[in-house]
This record gives sequence, structure tokens and C-alpha cells, in this order.
Amino acid sequence: MQLLFHYNWLIRDEWYSWCEDLTEEELLKNRTGGVGSILQTLFHIVDVEWSWIRLIQGKEDFQENFDDYKSISKVRELDARFHKEVEEFVNNWDENMESNKFYDLQSDGSHLTDTWGEVMRHIIAHEIHHIGQLSVWAREIGKKPISANFIGRGLGTH
Amino acid sequence: MQLLFHYNWLIRDEWYSWCEDLTEEELLKNRTGGVGSILQTLFHIVDVEWSWIRLIQGKEDFQENFDDYKSISKVRELDARFHKEVEEFVNNWDENMESNKFYDLQSDGSHLTDTWGEVMRHIIAHEIHHIGQLSVWAREIGKKPISANFIGRGLGTH
Repeated sequence: MQLLFHYNWLIRDEWYSWCEDLTEEELLKNRTGGVGSILQTLFHIVDVEWSWIRLIQGKEDFQENFDDYKSISKVRELDARFHKEVEEFVNNWDENMESNKFYDLQSDGSHLTDTWGEVMRHIIAHEIHHIGQLSVWAREIGKKPISANFIGRGLGTH
Repeated sequence: MQLLFHYNWLIRDEWYSWCEDLTEEELLKNRTGGVGSILQTLFHIVDVEWSWIRLIQGKEDFQENFDDYKSISKVRELDARFHKEVEEFVNNWDENMESNKFYDLQSDGSHLTDTWGEVMRHIIAHEIHHIGQLSVWAREIGKKPISANFIGRGLGTH
């Protein structure tokens, strides 16, 4: 479980560097699919990861507003701020937490029950999925996307 | 580990159904990013999953040619043919296999060493990444993509 989070963090960091070569206009340009722009996608990934990890622990979530984070350095700052808490939770994950329950309040007042294991895999898949969208937009701009390879990144347990 | 494979198989199946509403022209149309077309993406996912699982076991891989699979029913047939073997391997996965070594021959004659755990996570991330690309192309066609949510699919361990 942890290794796929580490993978996502490595890839995300490479995308931040990749973004440094883009103009603000390119980063904020509204694109087809996903949440709209390249920068908002990265913001959304950071926000969603942190929010889920807060929520399952019964901690308060707050909704960040993208309007306050419209530069790559601001998104990286937010990420750095959230990351400590996320990393601590992920690195202390153990299999006994797998079936812990999270009661997910729906907008109609009903509850869905997720296990913590489901939520963790949801976070993992969420980021990889959105990064796949970035890879298409990168080619639209005429730039090579960051490799999505898991192998070759030193993420084996030896 | 297994649950993310099960997730990918559920999502892939939903994309197959989603494709049924598209014309052959739409399915085969060359698009920006990824491996090119919607159908070739699904073919590529099926091929890569099976090939890796063959390779780490030291079994022979063979290169399928997309020209022979240019319809959704043909890709589904190929998937069904490969799936039995893939599913058996995945469902019999246990943590002791994690650090098994795979010697990955490079085109220059050198070897990289991957662990089996790395290869399994590589397969998982590979599919989710390409499915993210499909979601952008779906919106370009004006159609709602399949949800990438992990939660809500009955994939919790209770």
C-alpha cells in the first residue's frame, strides 16, 4: 500500500518540475476532461489526498479554494504543508487498519460505509487517474509527459 | 495488491460496455497522447498485463498485433483468453513473492532487476494511467467517462 503512495509522490514531484517550463497561461488554460486545467489537477490531487486522510481519522476537513493557489509555487507550498500529516499516516499504516470503518455522509443525508483500505486505494487510484489526464494534455501542448512507470524508480522491497 | 487488480478489471469491463455505443471510426480514431486510439489503449492494457505476468514467471511472451484486434469484440475475446491465467496468478499472490527477482533484459543487452512486487504495482498503475487518458478522450467526444472511483464498488475487505 505505502509503495503506491511513494510512487505517486515521486511522480507528482516530477510533474511540478515539468510545470516550471510552462507559462501561467498554459498552466491555467481550461482543458477538456478532468477538473479543467493542469494546475487545478495538481491542486485537486493534493486536496483530495489530504482531505480523505483527515476524514477517515474523524478530523476536520476544510475546503481550500483554488483561486488562492493559482501558481505552481503556491500549490507546492500547500502540498508541503499537507504532506507531513499525510506521510505520517501513510508510513504508519498497518494491515489491522484495513477494515476500519468510515461512515461517509452523503448529500441526501444517508451514509455509505467505506473501509479505510478502500479509502486508501481510492486515493491511490484517484491520483494515477488524474495524472493520466495530464499526460494527454502534455502531448496537446507538444511536450513529453512524465513517465508513469513504476519500475525503475527504486520502489522495490529488497 | 489483489484488490487494485480487481478494481482495474471492473473498470475495464465498464469501459468495454461504454465502447459499445461508439462507432468503429470513433474507437479507432487516432487521438493525442497515450498509444493513440481508444481501442488500442484497451488492447495495450490487456496485452501489457498478460505479458508482464508471463515474463516474471519465465514464460514465453508473444507480441500480439493490434491489426488483428480492431473491434471491441475481438479485444474482449483476447482479454477473456488471457484473463484466466492472469486472474489465477493474481489470486494466488502472496507477500512472500514480493521480493522475487525478475531480470529485465534491455535492448542494449544489459539487465535491470525488478522485484515481482514492483512489476505487480507497475501493471496496476499502468492501467489506471491509461484509463485516465480515455477519460479525456471521452469528454472530447462529448460523452461521460466511466467513474474512476474505487469506493462504492464493493472492494472493501469486511
